[in-house]
Amino acid sequence: MGFTDELETRAEPVWESILEHPMVVELGEGTLDEEPFRYFIRQDYRYLIDNARALAQGTAKAPDYERMTTFAELLTLTVDFEMDLHRSYAQEFGIPEAELEATEPSPTTRGYTDFLLRIGATGTFGEIVAALLPCMWTFNETGKRLAENGLPDDERYATWVQTYAGDEYTELTRAAEDIMDDLAADASQEERERYRSLFETGVRYEYRFWDAAWRQEEWSV
Amino acid sequence: MGFTDELETRAEPVWESILEHPMVVELGEGTLDEEPFRYFIRQDYRYLIDNARALAQGTAKAPDYERMTTFAELLTLTVDFEMDLHRSYAQEFGIPEAELEATEPSPTTRGYTDFLLRIGATGTFGEIVAALLPCMWTFNETGKRLAENGLPDDERYATWVQTYAGDEYTELTRAAEDIMDDLAADASQEERERYRSLFETGVRYEYRFWDAAWRQEEWSV
Amino acid sequence: MGFTDELETRAEPVWESILEHPMVVELGEGTLDEEPFRYFIRQDYRYLIDNARALAQGTAKAPDYERMTTFAELLTLTVDFEMDLHRSYAQEFGIPEAELEATEPSPTTRGYTDFLLRIGATGTFGEIVAALLPCMWTFNETGKRLAENGLPDDERYATWVQTYAGDEYTELTRAAEDIMDDLAADASQEERERYRSLFETGVRYEYRFWDAAWRQEEWSV
Amino acid sequence: MGFTDELETRAEPVWESILEHPMVVELGEGTLDEEPFRYFIRQDYRYLIDNARALAQGTAKAPDYERMTTFAELLTLTVDFEMDLHRSYAQEFGIPEAELEATEPSPTTRGYTDFLLRIGATGTFGEIVAALLPCMWTFNETGKRLAENGLPDDERYATWVQTYAGDEYTELTRAAEDIMDDLAADASQEERERYRSLFETGVRYEYRFWDAAWRQEEWSV
Repeated sequence: MGFTDELETRAEPVWESILEHPMVVELGEGTLDEEPFRYFIRQDYRYLIDNARALAQGTAKAPDYERMTTFAELLTLTVDFEMDLHRSYAQEFGIPEAELEATEPSPTTRGYTDFLLRIGATGTFGEIVAALLPCMWTFNETGKRLAENGLPDDERYATWVQTYAGDEYTELTRAAEDIMDDLAADASQEERERYRSLFETGVRYEYRFWDAAWRQEEWSV
Repeated sequence: MGFTDELETRAEPVWESILEHPMVVELGEGTLDEEPFRYFIRQDYRYLIDNARALAQGTAKAPDYERMTTFAELLTLTVDFEMDLHRSYAQEFGIPEAELEATEPSPTTRGYTDFLLRIGATGTFGEIVAALLPCMWTFNETGKRLAENGLPDDERYATWVQTYAGDEYTELTRAAEDIMDDLAADASQEERERYRSLFETGVRYEYRFWDAAWRQEEWSV
Repeated sequence: MGFTDELETRAEPVWESILEHPMVVELGEGTLDEEPFRYFIRQDYRYLIDNARALAQGTAKAPDYERMTTFAELLTLTVDFEMDLHRSYAQEFGIPEAELEATEPSPTTRGYTDFLLRIGATGTFGEIVAALLPCMWTFNETGKRLAENGLPDDERYATWVQTYAGDEYTELTRAAEDIMDDLAADASQEERERYRSLFETGVRYEYRFWDAAWRQEEWSV
Repeated sequence: MGFTDELETRAEPVWESILEHPMVVELGEGTLDEEPFRYFIRQDYRYLIDNARALAQGTAKAPDYERMTTFAELLTLTVDFEMDLHRSYAQEFGIPEAELEATEPSPTTRGYTDFLLRIGATGTFGEIVAALLPCMWTFNETGKRLAENGLPDDERYATWVQTYAGDEYTELTRAAEDIMDDLAADASQEERERYRSLFETGVRYEYRFWDAAWRQEEWSV
């Protein structure tokens, strides 16, 4: 069993919880209210900026030219494609650009991005990969599982499902998994244990991210 | 009005919420159940390790020999005195040392420590000071305000109040405030705004930290 | 006088020393022996890998989306274009790819890249820009001044001059200077002094880099 | 053969070069001119500030409480004892305190400290230990070998030899070696190779540091 197969087994129960979460159920059925999705897009945009920073931190720490190039490509993709997608969502859902840019991170977004950037700054390349993998993989998995039930009627939600279930996104996720498997193969027991723990934390944050959007979480004080 | 006076005005409503939180009210009255306090000590021990790391990161970034020395002293104090205190608490409350060391961070502890370590790794010295200040200052303020109503009968809770209300801890807090004021005096408008924002995030985490102990917060997935 | 005009005045005497250095004189005249140029290409390739890392560190610390994008582009360009250029040089000058990849950094390359990566990891975005600017600007300036005297007959050296004197490289350099000017406008006196000092160190390393190639510098012990 | 025995074998030829270097020979004989020693003290003071920063970076990355404590102690010792020693040397050799504080790093000091701080910021705890070990170990070894020939008559040089040959400094060096051995025992082949390479770079800088003092090295441009 490869290392990412092992990670998959760990992630499975959380992925199931995500698929059963009302936010994701209703997104897949196309019945989701605009308000929580608007919240989601705003927080996800804010998240993506720091996700791009973490990819840049990974690029800086890549052990060789080849993996530096792969990470630089993921970075470019995030900065160009994913953020454009969010800006176009914002437009469709009537979020003014200024509001999008000014979004204050929710407690959950703050926790997740500080986690990524802490690991990005202080971790090894392998640890950075382990922390970044859950985001891509969970979105890909969620997209694919939702797509199995057919696309939602609401075209805007259908685009979301198609983007993250699509071949391009799936290939990128595979590429990231391959990097993780290669790194794990050369890592010490202790290091692999750290990868598992970081991956698990990331997967947990994925669940919390959807849940925070559903609850439209705010800072209590 | 000095910069830290301004910070104090911002913190005041949160500090009042802390003083009204049942966890802190009952600690001050000495009526607090052991279970939430045990949770608090375990999580605070876990927190202190990363707090010490952030102090070390601050030492590494101190702009001159004098402030490097001050931070190295705060670090030594945390590593020696505060952690010993927690180990002695653990003993009094029947937490085996192995359990103390193995404590997994709660979502709130994870969020707070990743915040500190992210800023410690990627921020300027001034930003690190702004992120670290809320912990000392809020404990000192909480200790002093509780002490005004007299010490709790339960000696173990009385020790907590006395430690953080005491002269030594008050002086340390003043020293940290002075460093903040000096840095703010030389900082640009933009930089001061960043200090305010980091300080506010830290103060919010202080509230959440007590609240998480009261709720004995666990990871939901 | 803009901030980069001030930097230019500081750099001018070093740039003149570079233009008078036999390595650069003979490169411009096309009379340079292959051996020191081969050394230069090998060390510059080694340098570029860490230069790309520093650009990635800058991307991670960019204060906003726009400058993050600019830095991500500079990174992509370095990883794609500049390294390809060096690989094609290596081929023309008979340096096997394995030898290119295995190049051990000379003391000067080690010093220069550790400088960039230290600032990249511990400095502010402005400090990173100040440390990275000398490389682009000095190559651009050297290329342009050599080109004024006509291109060398040796086509391989002519390519070098044309690349770094060319419009594309000139525009990139201007873009980096503009970023520096914007940052300096908002910076405190102290911060500007740090920018000047970092820039000066970078410019000095540019001279030393040519000189090390000329001497084919090795570690003495 | 333990890992540090292996490192010792690698360091031996460089240590012999150091012992044969006129700067060290004359220091041991007590015949060294004041000028190069004054230069050495000024640069070593400048070095120690960044060495303390690297120790703080190591403290922040220590994998457990025990090693965090050891590193915090080494940090305190550097900040208190070693820097005081240098200030007292400065006084004896007529270097005004302002001049000591204002010392600009030589090219060699710049290279060495940027190396330490780059690794401190971007490396693992083991890599930081490998980069920091050469300084302590080489001074200890140099001190002990000089002491074997008897102490120099010049009391000021005798103090230098005694300090670094002494039991306290020898024990600290042993403690650092033990940490290195423990880390190497759990490290992958690749990681151990990185430790060797970082250690070797540090040892080389130790030689260069003496040589730079002898030549009273300055920036050429």
